[in-house]
Amino acid sequence: MTRAALRSEIDQALSDLRDFLGDRATAAEAVREHHGHGESSHKPALPDLVCFPHSTQEVSRIVQVSARYGLPVVPFGAGTSLEGGVNSLRGGISIDTRRMNRVLRLSVEDMDATVEAGISRTQLVKALENTGLTFFIDPGADATIGGMASTRASGTTAVKYGTMRDNVLGLTVVLADGRVIHTGSRARKSSAGYDLTRLFVGAEGTLGVITEVTLRLHALPEALAVAVCAFDSIEGAVRTVIDAIQLGVGPARIEFMDDRLVDAVNRYSKLELAVKPTLLFEFHGLSHAGVEEAARLAERLATEHGGLGFHWETTPAGRERLWEARHHVYYAARALRPGCECLTTDVCVPISRLADCMVETRADLDRVSFPATIVGHVGDGNFHVQCLLAPEQEEEAEAFSDRLVKRAHSMGGTCTGEHGVGFGKIKYLKAEHGEALELMRAIKRTLDPENRMNPGKVVEFD
Amino acid sequence: MTRAALRSEIDQALSDLRDFLGDRATAAEAVREHHGHGESSHKPALPDLVCFPHSTQEVSRIVQVSARYGLPVVPFGAGTSLEGGVNSLRGGISIDTRRMNRVLRLSVEDMDATVEAGISRTQLVKALENTGLTFFIDPGADATIGGMASTRASGTTAVKYGTMRDNVLGLTVVLADGRVIHTGSRARKSSAGYDLTRLFVGAEGTLGVITEVTLRLHALPEALAVAVCAFDSIEGAVRTVIDAIQLGVGPARIEFMDDRLVDAVNRYSKLELAVKPTLLFEFHGLSHAGVEEAARLAERLATEHGGLGFHWETTPAGRERLWEARHHVYYAARALRPGCECLTTDVCVPISRLADCMVETRADLDRVSFPATIVGHVGDGNFHVQCLLAPEQEEEAEAFSDRLVKRAHSMGGTCTGEHGVGFGKIKYLKAEHGEALELMRAIKRTLDPENRMNPGKVVEFD
Repeated sequence: MTRAALRSEIDQALSDLRDFLGDRATAAEAVREHHGHGESSHKPALPDLVCFPHSTQEVSRIVQVSARYGLPVVPFGAGTSLEGGVNSLRGGISIDTRRMNRVLRLSVEDMDATVEAGISRTQLVKALENTGLTFFIDPGADATIGGMASTRASGTTAVKYGTMRDNVLGLTVVLADGRVIHTGSRARKSSAGYDLTRLFVGAEGTLGVITEVTLRLHALPEALAVAVCAFDSIEGAVRTVIDAIQLGVGPARIEFMDDRLVDAVNRYSKLELAVKPTLLFEFHGLSHAGVEEAARLAERLATEHGGLGFHWETTPAGRERLWEARHHVYYAARALRPGCECLTTDVCVPISRLADCMVETRADLDRVSFPATIVGHVGDGNFHVQCLLAPEQEEEAEAFSDRLVKRAHSMGGTCTGEHGVGFGKIKYLKAEHGEALELMRAIKRTLDPENRMNPGKVVEFD
Repeated sequence: MTRAALRSEIDQALSDLRDFLGDRATAAEAVREHHGHGESSHKPALPDLVCFPHSTQEVSRIVQVSARYGLPVVPFGAGTSLEGGVNSLRGGISIDTRRMNRVLRLSVEDMDATVEAGISRTQLVKALENTGLTFFIDPGADATIGGMASTRASGTTAVKYGTMRDNVLGLTVVLADGRVIHTGSRARKSSAGYDLTRLFVGAEGTLGVITEVTLRLHALPEALAVAVCAFDSIEGAVRTVIDAIQLGVGPARIEFMDDRLVDAVNRYSKLELAVKPTLLFEFHGLSHAGVEEAARLAERLATEHGGLGFHWETTPAGRERLWEARHHVYYAARALRPGCECLTTDVCVPISRLADCMVETRADLDRVSFPATIVGHVGDGNFHVQCLLAPEQEEEAEAFSDRLVKRAHSMGGTCTGEHGVGFGKIKYLKAEHGEALELMRAIKRTLDPENRMNPGKVVEFD
């Protein structure tokens, strides 16, 4: 198609969209720019049009317009993607879900809720206040539930409460031809056919647009304890985690920070943690006695592995300060090198190989020219590296990232534990999945034969 | 194809199979008969040939032979299917996996293992003795792990440890053209592409043959408590379950039996339980104090809802006797009517509707001409009905089953919580999934265009 013909198609599409969206469909430059990127250093790519639907029905009509003019469709939530998942690589229509942010249904007895895809994690948690329930999955960023489902997000509490894979009971999805389907049910389990819910969770919008999500909720713990413990070595910290899980201590969070990150966090969040490999623990339980039992056992295990003593955060304010600091590690790391680009990468390995993987990675980082920090959801074997880069160091960082993924693969792990593939990690999927990648392609072709659904992400299409 | 031509094809296929399997490929009548049915009352359907492979590679070669001659392939494990999943509806090759029963890899640190599909649940549990770990998923029958993965099985412990959906980390699968793929990884979580593992879990062999399974294992609890409690009403029992889960009591099992089943169990297993709606509880924990705390809280909740007092099973022998009785409910129910057929059906609803669903079902059963009992994994909202039938009552039972599924659907539930679809429940999928069923069909067509993989199961193919 010539440029002029494409332009005319886009104009016609906008006109069709305005018929039912009014000024909630736009080609305004500033809006397009805002929707051209997430939070990563990946190069922005602008959509031609941006829409702000209010309902599944409107999303379906938008997708029908995209089909009519052969335009790509890219779902957009909070824009916190780290692998370029929301970038409109081939232009088209960015569907901003943020005006679809209602809780449609809440059942305290069933401990589940159905929400629109554009509600953010903190909006949902707020809506659950005074119900005795909450939604624990917490990737750090205030992402939308639709975005979290699409990237199979997890975060600090996955070690106890699972990932989005485990906490989505059902979905409403708009398919490439505009058809609306409902997957799963409100039953806690089912053996009635293929698990379509899990097919869309983690598909990053490449198979359809998620518009509603039925979520499993969790009871707020009756009692809670939080502690910090510094270690002499990475190995000692990881060994503590392995033992704690094997003994069934059941922590709600076990987070790791390397010494450089602790230093950065101390400066950024005004804490005074020992500048050592450090674990943050949180325990949830039925009673203070139960929580204390688990926490004391973890403390004993830490001491056996070179832990330098638990520091207990006994006040709500102290606990909040600590977890807020943990949530801000991305900014704390960036502040180590003001004005830098930050490449945040994410691998996950079997926990038996986690210490090896982190120690080798730390040694690797000692040989590169840029500063970098390590933070990990170590109960899951998952860790991230923040590479703080001047523009001329991007290539070197990419080479580091290749080595890191190769290392994770050689240890039986995965190239991304929770950030998703986007387009940043497509190149690693062949090594990770082998022949199974062909099956992913076949499924993509079946569900999206024209390759309009978030094209260029997750699986290459030819 | 004429009958003679088909016969000749089958003879040639057998000859090809014998080239690499020797006498582990057979057309012997008795073997075919054994492989023509599971444990249900569904009409048997014999395969033409039965194979006993030793490896994934042999399964791949068998599937290649099936492709060469256009013959169906039906995986067969322990033969405990309740919905006709293993019946060879269109003849073809039954692949008996029971000689593939090795533990290929075990990691205590990672709490995972890779096993061949034909290992049974109790074989696996035995192999894990003295490791401090176990595999908790327990559908009652001593099914194979491959069969359990294929039906997305669960059972008594799912309320704490999840179903096969949650406990399979990865699979080796032979596709319809004989290609071998590996899904998932040994990492605890991943966002690297489509969740193919969950696509095959619950697909009942209709998309490929599962040959190896990587499983999540669990730590044996340090402490354990088991109790029985009779209730005045079904509602009181269910209300206790809801409150216990909401308060985070976290039982490892909560099983329900209706009064008629308790009566049957008393006779069959020589127990003396009160003939009332009854809950069986099991609690797992870090210490006796922790377990007791949870159990005492459950006891208080039960008392509030008409519970007639907890009876504690304090000895290992007493606990074993109780759970063995629970496991034998199928036989206990059948013994109520010697020589009967037994239709066992299985629905799952949101727990807020469970009491309504069970009470309405009990009332429905009061109006039919056959005796029936109810047992449930009530923590999940899942229950089964055993209908004890004379041959002339099968139609009446089928009508009851239709009403039961309709009731479950109207309450937001599913037509099968854990038994699978097989061919017994195909007719309910349209009502349950609507337009999404078309997507399941499209996926089936993509992965198995010739409809050779367990044809006639889960999704109809035209």
